[in-house]
Amino acid sequence: MARPRGGTGTNQGAVRRHNLGTLLRHVHDAGEMSRADLTYRMGLNRSTIAGLVSELESLGLLEHASPAAPRGAGRPSAGVRIRDDGPYVVAVDLGVDQVVVAAVGLGGRIGVRAATALTQPSEAWHVGASVAGLVRRVVATSPAAAPLLGIGVAVPGLVRRSDGLVRHAPNLGWRDVSFGSIVLAALDLDVPIAVGNDADLGAWAEHRLGAAVDVADVVYLSGNVGVGAGVILGGRRLEGVAGYAGEVGHLCHDPAGTTCHCGSRGCWETVVGAPAIAEALCCPAEQVPRLGVMLDELSTAPRELRPIGVELGRGLASVVNVFNPSIVVLGGYFRPLFRLLGPEVTAGLAERSLRPARDAVRLAAPGLGTDSVLLGAAEAAMGPVFDDPVASLATAVTGAPDHLAG
Amino acid sequence: MARPRGGTGTNQGAVRRHNLGTLLRHVHDAGEMSRADLTYRMGLNRSTIAGLVSELESLGLLEHASPAAPRGAGRPSAGVRIRDDGPYVVAVDLGVDQVVVAAVGLGGRIGVRAATALTQPSEAWHVGASVAGLVRRVVATSPAAAPLLGIGVAVPGLVRRSDGLVRHAPNLGWRDVSFGSIVLAALDLDVPIAVGNDADLGAWAEHRLGAAVDVADVVYLSGNVGVGAGVILGGRRLEGVAGYAGEVGHLCHDPAGTTCHCGSRGCWETVVGAPAIAEALCCPAEQVPRLGVMLDELSTAPRELRPIGVELGRGLASVVNVFNPSIVVLGGYFRPLFRLLGPEVTAGLAERSLRPARDAVRLAAPGLGTDSVLLGAAEAAMGPVFDDPVASLATAVTGAPDHLAG
Ligand SMILES: [Zn+2]
Ligand SMILES: [Zn+2]
Repeated sequence: MARPRGGTGTNQGAVRRHNLGTLLRHVHDAGEMSRADLTYRMGLNRSTIAGLVSELESLGLLEHASPAAPRGAGRPSAGVRIRDDGPYVVAVDLGVDQVVVAAVGLGGRIGVRAATALTQPSEAWHVGASVAGLVRRVVATSPAAAPLLGIGVAVPGLVRRSDGLVRHAPNLGWRDVSFGSIVLAALDLDVPIAVGNDADLGAWAEHRLGAAVDVADVVYLSGNVGVGAGVILGGRRLEGVAGYAGEVGHLCHDPAGTTCHCGSRGCWETVVGAPAIAEALCCPAEQVPRLGVMLDELSTAPRELRPIGVELGRGLASVVNVFNPSIVVLGGYFRPLFRLLGPEVTAGLAERSLRPARDAVRLAAPGLGTDSVLLGAAEAAMGPVFDDPVASLATAVTGAPDHLAG
Repeated sequence: MARPRGGTGTNQGAVRRHNLGTLLRHVHDAGEMSRADLTYRMGLNRSTIAGLVSELESLGLLEHASPAAPRGAGRPSAGVRIRDDGPYVVAVDLGVDQVVVAAVGLGGRIGVRAATALTQPSEAWHVGASVAGLVRRVVATSPAAAPLLGIGVAVPGLVRRSDGLVRHAPNLGWRDVSFGSIVLAALDLDVPIAVGNDADLGAWAEHRLGAAVDVADVVYLSGNVGVGAGVILGGRRLEGVAGYAGEVGHLCHDPAGTTCHCGSRGCWETVVGAPAIAEALCCPAEQVPRLGVMLDELSTAPRELRPIGVELGRGLASVVNVFNPSIVVLGGYFRPLFRLLGPEVTAGLAERSLRPARDAVRLAAPGLGTDSVLLGAAEAAMGPVFDDPVASLATAVTGAPDHLAG
């Protein structure tokens, strides 16, 4: 999607751009950093760091920050931070029953936000038009001078790593949908767009910014209408040959169970997904998009929810037996379920997991609340700016053209 | 386990030893290589390669090989190969009902072999004594001048990566067994010993030497009394935080099923493991160790086996959905089952797997026949010699001491 880059083709230029991106990534991850920390982390000398910082300042990405209180002896070195009015990306968290769109600045600051409910069946072109409308709204209310670097989209389905094609999204009824192109066509805009699996993006965000920072072996479980896992083992994303790994929602949980949208029967997500939770709560179908709010408002679990807590734990046993993670982050509706039904979840896990693997794992709520997937989509859209800030800014869109602001 | 190293402590010495090990690994993988290929592969100059080869020859590891017929223009460069009478390791494939022990030379050549049946319950000290007896027999019949570099043991259970402790082997009834120490104590010998999970070792051997060479995303399924998976994704072993990942045999296959040795119910291995196959064939319990031979002798599948083929395929669907491999190698009893019941296995897989993941995978017989796990154990034992041949030879045992030959 990126336009051809202009400028220097020398190797020296490429190294410098790589260093610019790496420095920017450090400040993005930390929020604010001293020059001394940057010098230490990047293994470059002071004057090289000063030159890189100065270039990133002149590109409008970083700004000077007053030194924090000294931690040791000596004068603290001056710091840099992400500019609040600098470039941003638009992140899209596409669910089955709703879509959330937000502007996210470097540093992970979430700005303007917009959302809408989706109804089934969700034709891809129709969903694309809804998403485009929300993107327009978010862009129109963002500072006009800030460059839009790109768009990141999280989709509940199997996304081909090579090109972002949505191969199969069972709960949307999509097969082989080039959703990125559909959104760009509806926007009539040419910016880089990255599409990824929702749980994979949630896992990455929790690993970079949330509950699993500095943890190498992580599973993020996305519990929504469908259920999926994003897996990071040994600090690396688990992808499989084409990017489809982690489809734990379609592990067979009960061969005598109900039919799943994937075509199989008794998949785990048919037992613990949003429709099953809604049914246990006698919540009418049209209220399902409000399920998260309803669960968050509960202070104790109604008796009817308890079996779902046990089944959540039993399925977690599969996740733990297969991946041996040190943390499982419970996202989506699993976040309130785990808060309400901790003992049931733990009992289900104990029943079916192997002891050594179980002893090695801890269950946790997302560090990013309900925004893990959204921030993961933002991270995906920011990829190019951390590879080469100069090239990324060259493909950015600045201002809000008329047809966008509409 | 390794004794302290003598000799040079300089960094230059360490680099040279690393290069010696890497060159040896190349020849081990390829069987025989020209000096030109080694120069190209290692990115070192001709005279450095010549020096390394000369040192490995004087260490008794490599020998001169006549050049193969020229492939292109020009004179072919002289080659080197692994010496047949060089150092070897002893590999142990410990199953629930039998144990196989073999001498394996560098280059993967299997020499003397010995095996015995095991009876349940298998006390660890008793199994350790049996293994030690077989190791003695193998060592006594190997060339007396050849150095024994170490022992590698494959165990059907969860093995802690950090120290080789067998944390839990459900089908042996073992918990927290330091099996490596037990074997060494029974041998009264001090050589390096490496212990690993059987499926992990089988996967590694198939990836290095068998059906999955040059394939980055591999699952090796070990189908014996228990069922386990060794997984390689993106060319790296999937281990999890402590080394327990891949326990697919204990994925719940049918919650209404029978109790499993792990304490759970209806695990996949209760449906497709050796006892289930034996029961379908009305094979008496004492014949189970002969099951592999019996299955290999069949040219068509008895009707009673067909449901097991389907359940094998259904469980494979979980493996495919979760790991998105490009190849699944079916080891142990799954090798003959797949040959006999291909259509049933494929049908079960189609029923429960997601189409894009299924389309990306191919099922295959092991390239190493019934020796994948054995050769994986040998590879584990050879690890140190590829890190530093000089240090590894210093800890090797040469000749067959009286108490060993007994
Ligand atoms: Zn399903
Ligand atoms: Zn089990």
